[in-house]
Amino acid sequence: MSRVVVAFHSGYGHTRSVAQAVKEGAASVPGVIAELLDVTQASEASWAALAAADAIVFGSPTYMGGASADFKKFADESAKVWFTQGWKNKVAGGFTCSLNMSGDKYSTLMYFVTLAMQHGMIWVGTGMMPPRQPGHPDEINRLGSSIGVMAQADNVPPDQSPPAGDIETARLYGKRIGEMSVKTGAA
Amino acid sequence: MSRVVVAFHSGYGHTRSVAQAVKEGAASVPGVIAELLDVTQASEASWAALAAADAIVFGSPTYMGGASADFKKFADESAKVWFTQGWKNKVAGGFTCSLNMSGDKYSTLMYFVTLAMQHGMIWVGTGMMPPRQPGHPDEINRLGSSIGVMAQADNVPPDQSPPAGDIETARLYGKRIGEMSVKTGAA
Amino acid sequence: MSRVVVAFHSGYGHTRSVAQAVKEGAASVPGVIAELLDVTQASEASWAALAAADAIVFGSPTYMGGASADFKKFADESAKVWFTQGWKNKVAGGFTCSLNMSGDKYSTLMYFVTLAMQHGMIWVGTGMMPPRQPGHPDEINRLGSSIGVMAQADNVPPDQSPPAGDIETARLYGKRIGEMSVKTGAA
Amino acid sequence: MSRVVVAFHSGYGHTRSVAQAVKEGAASVPGVIAELLDVTQASEASWAALAAADAIVFGSPTYMGGASADFKKFADESAKVWFTQGWKNKVAGGFTCSLNMSGDKYSTLMYFVTLAMQHGMIWVGTGMMPPRQPGHPDEINRLGSSIGVMAQADNVPPDQSPPAGDIETARLYGKRIGEMSVKTGAA
Repeated sequence: MSRVVVAFHSGYGHTRSVAQAVKEGAASVPGVIAELLDVTQASEASWAALAAADAIVFGSPTYMGGASADFKKFADESAKVWFTQGWKNKVAGGFTCSLNMSGDKYSTLMYFVTLAMQHGMIWVGTGMMPPRQPGHPDEINRLGSSIGVMAQADNVPPDQSPPAGDIETARLYGKRIGEMSVKTGAA
Repeated sequence: MSRVVVAFHSGYGHTRSVAQAVKEGAASVPGVIAELLDVTQASEASWAALAAADAIVFGSPTYMGGASADFKKFADESAKVWFTQGWKNKVAGGFTCSLNMSGDKYSTLMYFVTLAMQHGMIWVGTGMMPPRQPGHPDEINRLGSSIGVMAQADNVPPDQSPPAGDIETARLYGKRIGEMSVKTGAA
Repeated sequence: MSRVVVAFHSGYGHTRSVAQAVKEGAASVPGVIAELLDVTQASEASWAALAAADAIVFGSPTYMGGASADFKKFADESAKVWFTQGWKNKVAGGFTCSLNMSGDKYSTLMYFVTLAMQHGMIWVGTGMMPPRQPGHPDEINRLGSSIGVMAQADNVPPDQSPPAGDIETARLYGKRIGEMSVKTGAA
Repeated sequence: MSRVVVAFHSGYGHTRSVAQAVKEGAASVPGVIAELLDVTQASEASWAALAAADAIVFGSPTYMGGASADFKKFADESAKVWFTQGWKNKVAGGFTCSLNMSGDKYSTLMYFVTLAMQHGMIWVGTGMMPPRQPGHPDEINRLGSSIGVMAQADNVPPDQSPPAGDIETARLYGKRIGEMSVKTGAA
């Protein structure tokens, strides 16, 4: 079995919805077990799950132009793993969610790439083309992101936003991560 | 008088519309003269105008995740100015336009910041808050960008897109650049 | 008087040495008062000092490819100021320190730019040319950075590293920030 | 057989030396054929070779804070391939060379990541730990880069610089790209 861990922080639940969809997408791939890890609750068992994973997907809201402090605390704690390159050659991916259509989401995703590269991981982006109707709430990849998933949430409860398109984008991304996890693990 | 030069490349006219609005915004500030420079037409006179400018605003479509090759050619040619730090302490700003709501526009804007910093310039962003209705075509700063102006254009002629909100965003940004140009030049 | 606040986090003291040099450089400019703010000790008085500042310089080690979690916590807390754009048009700058010559220091500095732009600040880089002998410990700007100051410290106590060149680079950068603070405040 | 193409631009020959070392490293892996492609000489045959490749490594000097205009021209031309996602799931990597120890090399490498992600490729970084003696000319990964290879060259002929450590770093990176190419191709 290939194991995918979605390691995320969510402030108000919107990023958690995205994380859940990524997990479901990954778990839909035959031969893949996927789980969520809220990084603010990381225990010894969580670090063991990360060590056993074939793929790790990083997720965080974009706060003040970058990954949240809660996510960064987790990233800094991963320095212990970095010393032994314990995540080397695992598949990596990422997603972020914020109020704006664009804003600085790219900044957060590029930070995830940088973190993954320090760990010697292999980065997998969305592999998705732009939507036919940019920004339309039902479209796949409606914000046009290739590095990782960008979701946009209004200031309403997480059951109302991000819209269906963003959630489906996250699900398809999770599927891609799961497939890549199986593919690279098989070799 | 303070002089603002909007140095841009436009492939199909959409970025030119944004450039035009930035120029008009700058020119609306008392004491400011503003002009457009299509970087593919840069002559000796253009380089003299840049040398005499108090502010230079960089503009380009986002092609394949970054500023266009035509813009980059101009940036590379500015190495001659860089050797003598001829643009040192001038005000700098930037804008980009592409099909997607987000995509990699941040990448292009961050390149403009990097270029400006090599030239020892002072970077001025949009100074704009996020819109009330993210993405709405009539909103100011509808894509939620602070580093520089992000505009989004559909695959239709430039008189139809980018929408009114993006054009007005560019005009207000030009005004901010013009004001900052007067302010820093006065000291 | 112009007021410069150097808001930094330091894990082992190396970044603190750089912060101290930036502060001294700023304070050397006639008409400038400069102070250090360790962001892990930020009190109500600290936020008042930041509100009263003409320039804020951000500093952090580069941990796992970005600003430290302690710095990011401060950045996230600055969201309160962001809502009212309380730092708008202040001068901004930044510096970072890490073990490597290059590594991901640019990532940390670009994050500082992004943060400053969200706050509507004006970014001032080093304005320094590359050194004659790249990397030499006595050279000004030995790592060749223009966005902000990059310092490199070995795993030895902070009185031994970063080297003299990096400390002098930081001092000169502080001077530039101080001068720009006076210049923009006067207008 | 797995095919690796090193697609690079070099202004004065230093980046070519790095490209050559990446190619040799890749070719040293059993089952891998590697070739150089000077992007300023790209022919129809070159685009066919890229289409047939299992891995593409991008290389460029860092000019004025980013990939050279010559490289960007190639990147923009790759939009034709992008429309059909012809490079999807190929392995991608990158390297850059410039005068400074750090400078804006990260900016160039991050552009390569962004380009690769638009193409739906899988990014492979150096997977290398920092050196024991940062900056020392004989050290592997002496500049401490994980996203891709950073080389530093003085203003002397390419047979004198970049130093042995950078060339060996490039060779080892090519080897890693070759191995990853075999691994992902086998699945």
